[in-house]
Amino acid sequence: MAEIDLNSDLAESFGVWRLGDDAAMLDVVTSANLACGFHAGDPRTLRRACLDAAARDVAIGAQVSYRDLAGFGRRFIDVDPADLSADVLYQLGALDGLARTAGTAVRYVKPHGALYNAIVEHEAQAAAVVEAVLAYDRTLPVLGLPGSAWLRLADDAGLSTVPEAFADRAYTAAGTLVPRAEPGAVLTDPDEIAARVVALAERGTLPAVDGTELEVHARSVCVHGDTPGAVAVARAVRSALEENDVDVRPFASPGP
Amino acid sequence: MAEIDLNSDLAESFGVWRLGDDAAMLDVVTSANLACGFHAGDPRTLRRACLDAAARDVAIGAQVSYRDLAGFGRRFIDVDPADLSADVLYQLGALDGLARTAGTAVRYVKPHGALYNAIVEHEAQAAAVVEAVLAYDRTLPVLGLPGSAWLRLADDAGLSTVPEAFADRAYTAAGTLVPRAEPGAVLTDPDEIAARVVALAERGTLPAVDGTELEVHARSVCVHGDTPGAVAVARAVRSALEENDVDVRPFASPGP
Amino acid sequence: MAEIDLNSDLAESFGVWRLGDDAAMLDVVTSANLACGFHAGDPRTLRRACLDAAARDVAIGAQVSYRDLAGFGRRFIDVDPADLSADVLYQLGALDGLARTAGTAVRYVKPHGALYNAIVEHEAQAAAVVEAVLAYDRTLPVLGLPGSAWLRLADDAGLSTVPEAFADRAYTAAGTLVPRAEPGAVLTDPDEIAARVVALAERGTLPAVDGTELEVHARSVCVHGDTPGAVAVARAVRSALEENDVDVRPFASPGP
Amino acid sequence: MAEIDLNSDLAESFGVWRLGDDAAMLDVVTSANLACGFHAGDPRTLRRACLDAAARDVAIGAQVSYRDLAGFGRRFIDVDPADLSADVLYQLGALDGLARTAGTAVRYVKPHGALYNAIVEHEAQAAAVVEAVLAYDRTLPVLGLPGSAWLRLADDAGLSTVPEAFADRAYTAAGTLVPRAEPGAVLTDPDEIAARVVALAERGTLPAVDGTELEVHARSVCVHGDTPGAVAVARAVRSALEENDVDVRPFASPGP
Repeated sequence: MAEIDLNSDLAESFGVWRLGDDAAMLDVVTSANLACGFHAGDPRTLRRACLDAAARDVAIGAQVSYRDLAGFGRRFIDVDPADLSADVLYQLGALDGLARTAGTAVRYVKPHGALYNAIVEHEAQAAAVVEAVLAYDRTLPVLGLPGSAWLRLADDAGLSTVPEAFADRAYTAAGTLVPRAEPGAVLTDPDEIAARVVALAERGTLPAVDGTELEVHARSVCVHGDTPGAVAVARAVRSALEENDVDVRPFASPGP
Repeated sequence: MAEIDLNSDLAESFGVWRLGDDAAMLDVVTSANLACGFHAGDPRTLRRACLDAAARDVAIGAQVSYRDLAGFGRRFIDVDPADLSADVLYQLGALDGLARTAGTAVRYVKPHGALYNAIVEHEAQAAAVVEAVLAYDRTLPVLGLPGSAWLRLADDAGLSTVPEAFADRAYTAAGTLVPRAEPGAVLTDPDEIAARVVALAERGTLPAVDGTELEVHARSVCVHGDTPGAVAVARAVRSALEENDVDVRPFASPGP
Repeated sequence: MAEIDLNSDLAESFGVWRLGDDAAMLDVVTSANLACGFHAGDPRTLRRACLDAAARDVAIGAQVSYRDLAGFGRRFIDVDPADLSADVLYQLGALDGLARTAGTAVRYVKPHGALYNAIVEHEAQAAAVVEAVLAYDRTLPVLGLPGSAWLRLADDAGLSTVPEAFADRAYTAAGTLVPRAEPGAVLTDPDEIAARVVALAERGTLPAVDGTELEVHARSVCVHGDTPGAVAVARAVRSALEENDVDVRPFASPGP
Repeated sequence: MAEIDLNSDLAESFGVWRLGDDAAMLDVVTSANLACGFHAGDPRTLRRACLDAAARDVAIGAQVSYRDLAGFGRRFIDVDPADLSADVLYQLGALDGLARTAGTAVRYVKPHGALYNAIVEHEAQAAAVVEAVLAYDRTLPVLGLPGSAWLRLADDAGLSTVPEAFADRAYTAAGTLVPRAEPGAVLTDPDEIAARVVALAERGTLPAVDGTELEVHARSVCVHGDTPGAVAVARAVRSALEENDVDVRPFASPGP
């Protein structure tokens, strides 16, 4: 039986400012990448999200970030690797503490935004994040882009790595994401997106923009939930997977 | 054999800004109240302090605070109790994560600055901090002012409470601290301060300002380390205790 | 001909997080209390709001606040008055700079949230804000609650004071606001709210909860814009005023 | 008669954390690059520094920065140019407001730290800072590295540009700074540094590391003041200039 994990970025509100519909998305996904306070996520929001994820058996991941509330973690920061390791450890511990008080724990690590993008190629920063995960808990899997320095260095260090695919992004025949600036880079039709994720779960392939059948090694698929439209897409993906008897389950055990 | 614990507020630098001499003080104290990032303490400073404390068998306490870098946590903030609980949990987890990567763990909780002062009387905020400690780990002792709402509510909830005395503060005959604004409120002579702490450790008493012998139930004594003069006083206290064969040891096990 | 000013809190987004519909409200109000970055309002949002206000001849006010992004300025902070004065000056200058680059300038000062509430009675903080306005520009009018220490001290210091009324709040027979916790404290019917504002503009009175005709000395009325419902209410108020030939105009000149 | 300006980075404390000796340095320099709150400089520190600079006829410059207290503005941040322009305007207005309440005003702009370094080559960010200065006040001179994109674009836009030299840095024969990592990059002997600055003021030249006499077009020389040793060097420079009858004066009028 085919299986797949659905992950999404959640708990990205901050104080009075709300973003996304955490409750709705926690009914759809099996893995929740929760903000850790550095790009978003006030502690009360994080505590609530941990409790809600635990109640639904959704696995909690630490969405560690650069320290940048004003930029939502979307701006590259040339942080010293020793500072970055400590920043990641701080965030990991903070979220894990809240998760443990909710009866679960942080089950994996997925860097956020500009840090996610930077460590596709930035070896020193990638190594700094790997160092933090190793220091914290070397049994934690790490989630990221296939082919990234981040996953390569994590694998070299003995960490379990989980490559992910993007439900709503077009892929080139070479297997890379079509840059956002190009037409057709982002898919919006719920049925099309759902069909692609079903194909990925069942056959491990996605159609590239030129029609090529692309082998995609992804144990998890990222779905967005920051707009009402995105929630609808996520729900369509989940429904299609269930209708096709795909086992939708976290790659990491969500339990205590 | 008499015994006493010496605690001090440490890891209160932030980025380029340095405060106090952590390395010197970690050679003097047996318990280190480490900042948790909300009033001071960047993650790299915290990581360093955790490693240094672990190497010296100094017990690590979480010095949780209001979120107020600009005010160094010294200004009362009328935080909603549910937010305060979550803020405390976040800080506890963050420091504990860094402590655990250093081979030890957070061993107790001591609120900082304005929060310390507020929960002497502010029942709702005191209860919020107690709730956070209970949720995080109900075996963690809490450190605070004798007679405070904080220690009373913690005790009611089944937490272990550790009242502390202040090495360099004058006491009234009623057992309260002489307000800082009054003359003689803060002692500065190292020998006098050291003699008082020895008396406290050996006989459980301190002389009040009117000469009364005051019974002080304190298992820990707070010494400061934020100026070169303060470090010298702390060293004088430690030396006097050792010369008088007082066992200077943490009230909580610093081990892993 | 009767005249009235409508003011609203705007520019309260921060980075990726959006709050309220600034563009819609700038078509309704005549005075815009713009956030200044301490409780909300990233610089790009402020710049945009200044340009949009200038284009519509809406007067810009500085909505100065405690430094508290996490609490949206809604939590009392026991700031030292000298710090508070400097904080207010910093915010005033920052917003004024952006307003001047938009061809206008800050035309008045209205404290935000917990600071607004605190200086109804807190003399030292009220005096600190007055001191800042005097130091910055003693021709700037200040907006606030009738009977507050803030307006009294400002008046004593020679500042021009503008008392405001609240469009959607019930008043007691004594002329104070019905506390939010009580039933009926907040009005929601657009027609009722609009009728009250028209009465206030035409006759200087509002009906109290016991039916008493209350004399209200208010040259400005605060309307909210942080929800779609609030925007609809504000539009209803504006329309009713215009239908009744009330001159809706800023109390301070919005021009350069 | 030869003349030169001495500038230094000041007002870089934040809250309880103190950095440098502002009072001592304001007796030495003729231009003070004051922090603006984004990398350092709480409002009360800024207000004090503005008053002290005004009292000594020292010209105030706005040391605008990336928003990065944790990194002291020393880390490159890939900020969107429109955000950067608004950030710079916000900081300029904030400091200028404090300066004007002190009876003077911001007289020039010198970017700080990583932003200073970035806009040597980063055209988009350099243009963003230029755009902000133009929007704020096109009569403000800008200070920076000779040959930088920042000075070139400012000059193209009609701003007055002031190239600066560094008192304690070695220069290559090509006129660039010897990288800090190389031996001899930073000079420490007060007499040697003072003699170099005198030569620069009198003849417009500095000896390069290979002994070449280098023509340096600098109307201002940057001296540091963040350590007791740095203050001593700055004083030695000032004394040597006066002993050699060099007129030490700000390039911009410090008056109201």
